[in-house]
Amino acid sequence: MSDRPDWSRAPASTIARSVAEGSVAASDVAAAALARIARIDPQVNSFTDILSERAMARAEAVDAARGRGETLGPLAGVPFAVKNLFDVAGLPTRAGARINRERPPAARDAALIRRMEAAGACLVGALNMGEYAYDFTGENVHDGDTKNPHDLGHMSGGSSGGSGGAVAAGLVPLALASDTNGSIRVPSAFCGCFGLKPTYGRLSRAGSFPFVGSLDHLGPMARSSLDLALAYDAMQGPDPEDPACVVRPPEPTVAGLDAGIGDLRIAVAGGYFACRGHPEAFAAVDHVARALGCSRRVEIPEAARARASAYLITAAEGAALHLDRLRTRASDFDPAVRDRLIAGAMLPAPFVERAQRFRRWYRAAVLELFGEVDVILAPATPCRAPRSGQKTFLLDGVEWPVRANIGLFTQPISFIGLPVVAVPVWLDGGLPLGVQVIAAPWREAVALRVAHELERAGAVRAPVATLEPET
Amino acid sequence: MSDRPDWSRAPASTIARSVAEGSVAASDVAAAALARIARIDPQVNSFTDILSERAMARAEAVDAARGRGETLGPLAGVPFAVKNLFDVAGLPTRAGARINRERPPAARDAALIRRMEAAGACLVGALNMGEYAYDFTGENVHDGDTKNPHDLGHMSGGSSGGSGGAVAAGLVPLALASDTNGSIRVPSAFCGCFGLKPTYGRLSRAGSFPFVGSLDHLGPMARSSLDLALAYDAMQGPDPEDPACVVRPPEPTVAGLDAGIGDLRIAVAGGYFACRGHPEAFAAVDHVARALGCSRRVEIPEAARARASAYLITAAEGAALHLDRLRTRASDFDPAVRDRLIAGAMLPAPFVERAQRFRRWYRAAVLELFGEVDVILAPATPCRAPRSGQKTFLLDGVEWPVRANIGLFTQPISFIGLPVVAVPVWLDGGLPLGVQVIAAPWREAVALRVAHELERAGAVRAPVATLEPET
Repeated sequence: MSDRPDWSRAPASTIARSVAEGSVAASDVAAAALARIARIDPQVNSFTDILSERAMARAEAVDAARGRGETLGPLAGVPFAVKNLFDVAGLPTRAGARINRERPPAARDAALIRRMEAAGACLVGALNMGEYAYDFTGENVHDGDTKNPHDLGHMSGGSSGGSGGAVAAGLVPLALASDTNGSIRVPSAFCGCFGLKPTYGRLSRAGSFPFVGSLDHLGPMARSSLDLALAYDAMQGPDPEDPACVVRPPEPTVAGLDAGIGDLRIAVAGGYFACRGHPEAFAAVDHVARALGCSRRVEIPEAARARASAYLITAAEGAALHLDRLRTRASDFDPAVRDRLIAGAMLPAPFVERAQRFRRWYRAAVLELFGEVDVILAPATPCRAPRSGQKTFLLDGVEWPVRANIGLFTQPISFIGLPVVAVPVWLDGGLPLGVQVIAAPWREAVALRVAHELERAGAVRAPVATLEPET
Repeated sequence: MSDRPDWSRAPASTIARSVAEGSVAASDVAAAALARIARIDPQVNSFTDILSERAMARAEAVDAARGRGETLGPLAGVPFAVKNLFDVAGLPTRAGARINRERPPAARDAALIRRMEAAGACLVGALNMGEYAYDFTGENVHDGDTKNPHDLGHMSGGSSGGSGGAVAAGLVPLALASDTNGSIRVPSAFCGCFGLKPTYGRLSRAGSFPFVGSLDHLGPMARSSLDLALAYDAMQGPDPEDPACVVRPPEPTVAGLDAGIGDLRIAVAGGYFACRGHPEAFAAVDHVARALGCSRRVEIPEAARARASAYLITAAEGAALHLDRLRTRASDFDPAVRDRLIAGAMLPAPFVERAQRFRRWYRAAVLELFGEVDVILAPATPCRAPRSGQKTFLLDGVEWPVRANIGLFTQPISFIGLPVVAVPVWLDGGLPLGVQVIAAPWREAVALRVAHELERAGAVRAPVATLEPET
């Protein structure tokens, strides 16, 4: 290591402040990030596209603006990367699929990329992901698997495996990702970083490749709650180009991050969320609860049914989206994704209709629960990151398929669009675990505040993985 | 006929005015209606329940209120009846099904019955209907078919066949019914009366047996546009007990009924709505268009796809509703309804999902059309009422099943919840035909005004059928 600070591994908040103060040039930060990506990423395989020229041009524009005395944005000079289902002008929007590589290059950036860059951030590349986001492992047969930076023999988690890998490996301080049933929270847990899945309808999805319209969320991943909040604040605000994006003024979160949690009623989810997991998954929740002085328990009603319903709706809506491709290009799919989509294509409609009906009941029941508590804690995954290629695991003594069950605890939450911050917990010995900090709709600020308090107390943290440079 | 006016056959507006003035007692009107029902209905079979005691008690209460000098409601003393999917306190809500007869008696009246009675109307009974409202013929294997009062050998139309039969036979001036894909408009056309299917979400469905939640509408049928408007105005207003009932203040229509149509841009629907019908169906539309001085044509885009989508959603949502009954009580269904529900139970979910997606596109496309016109005219049915039991008919020289195709022209309109008044047209020789007067969402007043103008000009009318009393 040189005696200069390694800007490629610095937090977004530090970079933005330093660039604004002039203690570092945005172009030096971008160059450092690009160099680190080139050196480290071959081990992790988190990037599918590296945008060196674009990143350098953007960083130089930030430096030029500073030179002219302009006020810089809150993310000035911060390198970031996006899951490759975000449109990036000039690239086909791959969405992890071989078939999509044939698409024409996107004409313009996704809405959230534009907002990030409007705040001064510099896009450095596009990130690996599970095919069509139908994945919890971080595996991809076309682009290769994203490895877990904390142990290269283990899964990164999916479908935003590239986002988790790039953040945990210290290649970027911020990544944008998507979460339909857990695709931000699972890689955050496996890779030991922070992830925010905002309320459904909060952030614009314009210019991103969809999976399940009624469940898709976009959000940031980072190595601190402050960076998460900075990115989230930069991206808030309605967008007429995404009809599901609710017209709601931005509710900035950075300023209130330090307000503490004295006013919050916090409870641990019992029942469904306290079984079918490895002991360490629940130990991680207990660790967080203790740090918050929380001893209360609540039961989220009918969570198993919620998960089953999320499954049905996902399979059916996903199959509807891909039906023509399934008919004409079946052999070009990832076999594991294809099998699930074909199953979805044959699902009887009344099952899905009943799942939708249940969903309305469940939303009302859970909203009622938020009359009694402000925050609910639950595990993000039932276990630490499994080994790469691992097919089954034991949950409560029963052998289950890994792929289908990693999202056990995330699905019932995204099903009704609740905002969640996934926080990384390091218990003794081994890979990290994630805990979901779940708030009522539109109360992202509350979940972020709790995450920040946990970080302040030293209970959660997201270190950069120790990776040997390739020789 | 006695020398007294036959109050049982009088319009609602006349009855209410006469009762208010004291020229007739509500109890005499109710008694006359009950006597006529007893005398005439055995031929038509429109009633499944006659509520003599309740009706007389209610009428006597109206008379007592008048005696005390109270101001009477706009429907004072008006007898009405309801399709038997409305809850009536003390009766099991049959919805045309044998299975439903085992339900416990309803504890209270449906919301719209309560509103009608609050306006002074008197419920005299419940009306026959197609099983679970999945019908266009007026046939019912459990309760017997409702006959067309204008020719007892022909269909009344469905699923609100009892409502059409009772109104056309002069048994009541007003009936309440439901319309999912055409169930108010089809019997209005076949029986030659007026029917209003309001905008989706306008009238409360609380206390009614559902069929397809996203397509079900309740509304009135009558022998004049004024009576239709009187009943509609009495029933408007939000209802927290029906979550789909939009919070929207009532927009009374009676006062503006005479305003004429000088300000309205009216057009005939071409394309899909101008083929696959008997010549007289289009002649009826031309007749109405001429009376309105309308020569313009518009094309409702993708109407065939809209109808197909309505079919898929109906079958799937209907099957979801009845799945448990199909599993346990299959042999107690009407076989024709059971077959359609079983087909719906096996529909692949992605087809339905795509239908829903198309629906959003179609709604936007049709709303755009209403920037250019205020009212669109289209046939209500492709033909006059077929003979009872008739299985097929010829449309453009091709033989089609009757049941599945009567709703050809109604389905694409209810699919996106547009308000429609069906008006009855009598061409030379034969049974009546219906024309749909279609307006933009929430503009029921416009459709009613057009219907009223047509009535004033003598172009449409709803005579009481000539029926010989049973000997």
